[in-house]
Amino acid sequence: MGIYIEHISYLTMGDGPIVQEGAIRVEGQKIAAIGAVEKEPGDTVISGRGKIALPGLVNSHNHAAMVLLRGYADHLPLMRWLTEMIFPAEERLGGEDVYWGTLLAHLEMIKSGTTSYADMYFFLEESIWALEESGMRASLALGATDGDGKGDEKLAATLSLHREFQNHLDGRLRIMFGPHAPYTCSEPFLRKVAAAGQEHGIPIHIHIAETLQEIEIIEKSKGKRVIPYLYDIGFFDAQVLAAHMVHVNEAEMDLLKEKNVAVSICTQSEMKLASGIAPVTKYLEKGIVTGLATDGASSNNDLDMWEEMRATSFLQKVALMDSTALLPYETLSMATLGSARAMYWGDEIGSLEPGKKADIVLVDLSAPHFCPRNDLLSHLLHCGKGGDVDTVLIDGKVLMEKRRMLHLDEEKILYEAEKRAKVLLQL
Amino acid sequence: MGIYIEHISYLTMGDGPIVQEGAIRVEGQKIAAIGAVEKEPGDTVISGRGKIALPGLVNSHNHAAMVLLRGYADHLPLMRWLTEMIFPAEERLGGEDVYWGTLLAHLEMIKSGTTSYADMYFFLEESIWALEESGMRASLALGATDGDGKGDEKLAATLSLHREFQNHLDGRLRIMFGPHAPYTCSEPFLRKVAAAGQEHGIPIHIHIAETLQEIEIIEKSKGKRVIPYLYDIGFFDAQVLAAHMVHVNEAEMDLLKEKNVAVSICTQSEMKLASGIAPVTKYLEKGIVTGLATDGASSNNDLDMWEEMRATSFLQKVALMDSTALLPYETLSMATLGSARAMYWGDEIGSLEPGKKADIVLVDLSAPHFCPRNDLLSHLLHCGKGGDVDTVLIDGKVLMEKRRMLHLDEEKILYEAEKRAKVLLQL
Repeated sequence: MGIYIEHISYLTMGDGPIVQEGAIRVEGQKIAAIGAVEKEPGDTVISGRGKIALPGLVNSHNHAAMVLLRGYADHLPLMRWLTEMIFPAEERLGGEDVYWGTLLAHLEMIKSGTTSYADMYFFLEESIWALEESGMRASLALGATDGDGKGDEKLAATLSLHREFQNHLDGRLRIMFGPHAPYTCSEPFLRKVAAAGQEHGIPIHIHIAETLQEIEIIEKSKGKRVIPYLYDIGFFDAQVLAAHMVHVNEAEMDLLKEKNVAVSICTQSEMKLASGIAPVTKYLEKGIVTGLATDGASSNNDLDMWEEMRATSFLQKVALMDSTALLPYETLSMATLGSARAMYWGDEIGSLEPGKKADIVLVDLSAPHFCPRNDLLSHLLHCGKGGDVDTVLIDGKVLMEKRRMLHLDEEKILYEAEKRAKVLLQL
Repeated sequence: MGIYIEHISYLTMGDGPIVQEGAIRVEGQKIAAIGAVEKEPGDTVISGRGKIALPGLVNSHNHAAMVLLRGYADHLPLMRWLTEMIFPAEERLGGEDVYWGTLLAHLEMIKSGTTSYADMYFFLEESIWALEESGMRASLALGATDGDGKGDEKLAATLSLHREFQNHLDGRLRIMFGPHAPYTCSEPFLRKVAAAGQEHGIPIHIHIAETLQEIEIIEKSKGKRVIPYLYDIGFFDAQVLAAHMVHVNEAEMDLLKEKNVAVSICTQSEMKLASGIAPVTKYLEKGIVTGLATDGASSNNDLDMWEEMRATSFLQKVALMDSTALLPYETLSMATLGSARAMYWGDEIGSLEPGKKADIVLVDLSAPHFCPRNDLLSHLLHCGKGGDVDTVLIDGKVLMEKRRMLHLDEEKILYEAEKRAKVLLQL
């Protein structure tokens, strides 16, 4: 009584850049077998003809509900945009907004082949309801700063969320700590979070080294750059998922490698906000766990991991003036297993392997941009689009088939999101 | 007996960044009226609800038939890729390959909202057959070098094509000169082409300042950089469409401006081949006519102008470390009226205005990535995708409706292209 995907090409992302042919059998939440596998009685059959199966894309740094603020005032300089427009709008944000915003983000992600994500935002319980509703997989972190003197309270809130919800929704939900950034959190707070992270085995999701201003701020207050500062206070002794990591030098990379810090690159956000160009190829050379992500929709402005892959590949080539920098497989790997490992979830997701969770996307190869089929790996990276994703399984459940959402009420979500954004942004 | 597009939002690209509401009436090949216009008896009605009309996107530098080589060996360094793989494959290329390849390119372009393009390639008559078949609009140039001593012959060939075909296909076809580049054409040949261009009023389509190697080659042989060299030999006295123009300094821009040279930026190609970052914002500041383009699919690897717009905007922001560089409207403008003017065709295409050719695309706004509708201009640039294009009119004729090609046999084109590529590339 499983699902049998027959006559399919697939790329496991676990065996290297080899496109194979065969079948995939899903039983319950997991991949039971892949390759020369037989159909079993009672299996539901999905035809894989003309398609390729990939592990679901993994978006390792997001603020999902920010889709509500998509495109809002985004022609302003960064600091004015944040302080005059985004923060005031977020002040007005309530739990129901987060619920509908998160559902909209899930809809957008599923329709473009993303099956799991790492989030940092507010109103986590409402995000959890959205995850329950949509069937997506996520690791959620409550965004926290401690300038308001409520650091301990927020730390306790995450511990409580972790006790209550870790591995809920059949294991589709995990909880992380979410201290916002080294320049918005005090040193004592960062030390406490790191200690709690180590004590309870809870990973920490944080923004680090996103802008040059951040490097300067920390240098002024701490007398050193941000990476050595965090290293010295023991922050990296916990499991850390560091988003952005744009301004990091080679000596600092060695510190990251020593402590197994994982990074998540948000290329389009870093381009759009003019943060800088992350040293992606160096991270890979050093063997640092590296994932890709969209960041929140406010700074992207969508949640499309195909565009993220392409932008990362192209930007590295021109930045290094080397057209051979980053092979297609390396970039695809960052958007799947790389991101999964960066979320400390590589044991269960990120590749198509027996025993792993059945988070699978089938990409329809019939569009003109995939013709002729000269090099499928190159085509996926350079020509693949969210709209080519035909079928999406998460946790063994078919959530989209032939681009039709089987469970979510698409119209209702778009209607509610539109309505709430109007109020929120006072448009 | 026209076409009446009712209840539509539209962006004319001629009136500035204002989204307006109303109707568009097409009569014959042209836009008859736009705005508060009434339906006339016998009009075919197209509903514009939930959509926005834009002028068809204009791809001002292409080698359309190179879609056959899409993704072929593209992990190699540029010179090895070109000399060991692409050139030998092109040696084997015949007219029928160009015919089917060009049709595949048309299919891909129409499906992503591009309605006209400037091409430089071989077997122009076969490209013309493809244009006749597909209904697209193009300005074709026969790619020419004169190292083989046949410069005069090639110049005569273009003059003959111009006499025979200029303004054929109801005005959908124009002919340009296509000298390949300053480093592959001799000075006498470039002088002759420029003189013929001036004499006959035929614009010249050429690659200029694409790579640093080119700058060096010209400096060595001519004792000056490529732009002053071309200026001094009178090349810019003709109407020039200069593709790439990556390595151009401010003094050189003043020369371009003086001579009304138009440029066409191919951002993704210039990233992928590691050519460099073109000074796009400076071109706009100087008032130089600037268009966008994909280049051939071999170096992109698709013909999607939405991706080109987004990449251009994002790359300029990070390169200038200024998140406010290039407003969405400026980028949209380069991909429409800018490219049309760069092709010396701005009198007839590139904007939605009464009297202009009815090259119109309707973009469906129902996808989650356009929700909520906080800023439509920002959404089009940052979130819009080729797959959102619902309906395409070229020259007053509906070529695609609800994403269905009305005249082209999609399956046959994909089949023929696939078959021919296999032979060509000996895969």
